[in-house]
Amino acid sequence: MNINRNFLALCPSYLFTEVGARIASFREKHPERELIRLSVGDVTLPLAPAVIRAMQRAVLEMGDAATFKGYCPETCYGYEVLTEAIRARYARRGVKLSAGEIFVSDGAKSDLSGILDIFSCDNTVLVPDPVYPVYADTNIMAGRRIVYADANGGNGFLPLPDERVQADIIYICSPNNPTGAAYGYDGLKAWVDYALRRNAVILYDAAYEAFIDGDLPHSVFEVEGARGCAIEICSFSKTAGFTGVRCGYTVIPDTLEREGVSLSGLWIRRQSTKFNGVSYITQMGAAAAFGEEGERQTAENIAYYKRNAAAIAALLGANGIWYTGGRHSPYIWMRCPGGMNSLQFFGALLEGAGVAGTPGYGFGKNGEGYLRLTAFASAEDTAKACTRMGDFLKRI
Amino acid sequence: MNINRNFLALCPSYLFTEVGARIASFREKHPERELIRLSVGDVTLPLAPAVIRAMQRAVLEMGDAATFKGYCPETCYGYEVLTEAIRARYARRGVKLSAGEIFVSDGAKSDLSGILDIFSCDNTVLVPDPVYPVYADTNIMAGRRIVYADANGGNGFLPLPDERVQADIIYICSPNNPTGAAYGYDGLKAWVDYALRRNAVILYDAAYEAFIDGDLPHSVFEVEGARGCAIEICSFSKTAGFTGVRCGYTVIPDTLEREGVSLSGLWIRRQSTKFNGVSYITQMGAAAAFGEEGERQTAENIAYYKRNAAAIAALLGANGIWYTGGRHSPYIWMRCPGGMNSLQFFGALLEGAGVAGTPGYGFGKNGEGYLRLTAFASAEDTAKACTRMGDFLKRI
Repeated sequence: MNINRNFLALCPSYLFTEVGARIASFREKHPERELIRLSVGDVTLPLAPAVIRAMQRAVLEMGDAATFKGYCPETCYGYEVLTEAIRARYARRGVKLSAGEIFVSDGAKSDLSGILDIFSCDNTVLVPDPVYPVYADTNIMAGRRIVYADANGGNGFLPLPDERVQADIIYICSPNNPTGAAYGYDGLKAWVDYALRRNAVILYDAAYEAFIDGDLPHSVFEVEGARGCAIEICSFSKTAGFTGVRCGYTVIPDTLEREGVSLSGLWIRRQSTKFNGVSYITQMGAAAAFGEEGERQTAENIAYYKRNAAAIAALLGANGIWYTGGRHSPYIWMRCPGGMNSLQFFGALLEGAGVAGTPGYGFGKNGEGYLRLTAFASAEDTAKACTRMGDFLKRI
Repeated sequence: MNINRNFLALCPSYLFTEVGARIASFREKHPERELIRLSVGDVTLPLAPAVIRAMQRAVLEMGDAATFKGYCPETCYGYEVLTEAIRARYARRGVKLSAGEIFVSDGAKSDLSGILDIFSCDNTVLVPDPVYPVYADTNIMAGRRIVYADANGGNGFLPLPDERVQADIIYICSPNNPTGAAYGYDGLKAWVDYALRRNAVILYDAAYEAFIDGDLPHSVFEVEGARGCAIEICSFSKTAGFTGVRCGYTVIPDTLEREGVSLSGLWIRRQSTKFNGVSYITQMGAAAAFGEEGERQTAENIAYYKRNAAAIAALLGANGIWYTGGRHSPYIWMRCPGGMNSLQFFGALLEGAGVAGTPGYGFGKNGEGYLRLTAFASAEDTAKACTRMGDFLKRI
């Protein structure tokens, strides 16, 4: 009996232990001071009324034999009312999908790991640095070789393909966690062309697409050629506040093949074997989130967070701090001033302003020297934090 | 870029295609005849009123900023109200668990595949035959070697350990799907001792434990020594009718190690990386299912299904048909009469009685010559089916 020794190669998550310990210490030393956390990547506004109504109705249906729902008839795909709502949303962006290309799940995190099952462990994975740690960790668990694409101030944290690098599975998260940077059409096209030349597959994490304004692509499938190389993974978590409800969807073009094998065919087999569908109640809520009223209401919540992000960005700009994000994202990625490394600055900001961010070193070597701030706190707390940060930045 | 070629080793699921095609053909040829399906492994009775109330309350909380819930704070474990309810349920069976040994998930199917991530692919897996196809398929996808333990009429479909067989991961499903057979203490003790001697791990699927009456173990942890070799995977699907709600829990003793590594430690890392928790609404419903009122109400539904099972079993017994299951299970596993193989008998029963079962060959070579009947239809339909089957059995 052997355990999976790849797990021993995982880095322990020192980041959150360290951050948690310092925050606990702050609270102990300064019980009278109010700590404002701009560190949490979780939504705070309640679900849209249209979503609540749909879920209430679904709950009642589950209590009545005549309307009770057991297993979702289409385990891999989800209920048609939801997949059709997703399809319509893509159509509004000019992306035409077939019904059989959309697969509802309990969230992007589950799909980001599940999708790896259909690929051999001897593929090379390309991951940006800094990055959401899950992309690397899921591949370390499988024993795959990982190469990193450097994201930094020089490229605005939007790395472009390096012809010297061979990769089979390419992660792109745009708008990005942790940096908030978002690719334009040309940048994504460069990656699509690179993937097509190498017969690689792009795993496109679109978890934050609802925060985009202006003319950036929301979906990788808006890019010519993407149907030949991309799988898109989306989430209701940030779009509709579903972090505690759990729903997402993965889009795999039905013509996408590698080695002559349909990737959606492999996904269907994987999901049929390892997954048993999403709650009926959740799916009805998700369908309502993408209905006319739901989209309007969830857009108001997104706008609220974006106003917070804009306030934080404005504060940094006014104080000459270099940053990215803050516009198409709930995240602002700031360069630590005063030559401090990310943990030092995190501590200084905590002590000096009573504001907690997330030190960038936890997201990779290129995160060193940066701090992530999030826009999910209340507008009042965000404004208060901005005032305090402004005072603090002037003092250092 | 290589796909996972292990997927090409999977058998296509001819069973459900074949069964579906024959049922569709029957409906086309005999639109006037009423088909009764005793083939579906899905619940039909609505959720308990206590569960509905808890979920309604949770939905409303999600619509209010003051009570809104984002990510479950303890992603891997679940909300305390639920884990404590699970712990209390085990305590009532005399099994003492610590809070940190219970891990809530979106269902047994997800956990049955997820748990394999913590084990090396070079382990040998022991699976009973016949069996729920997922145990073998998830391991075929990973490229593990699989050996089968023969379950048959000779051992009452309750195979005992074979000392000549070396295995590292051992699947036990008791009460069993598809046979409904359930181990007593001695049978489970034999498997626990076997696993301890070989340093193996038992994956114990307790999805149907709520159907047990009398003095059989409900949990593998009622067996002496099991904490040294077993992981138990449970589900609210059949226990509380949650097939369309999605909730389960896995129990890993905190002292369970292999190669000096804590298995629950590996599971925590796996879940933290590949999973993002269960819906707040679902968890509150699940906690209510295990509360006093919820347990009473869900027990009534279980009793309803058990009465159906008893009726089917009685009908078979009265007609001299050998069967197992039907007592501690919603499944009855009958030997096909008249020397017919399972697909032949399935077809004959369909044509002759308008009743659909599930041909045993789909569950493995030892399923040939057997048919699975399920107790989830309405009491009226079950009674009608029994009458028709009785007439049919007398004619052949």
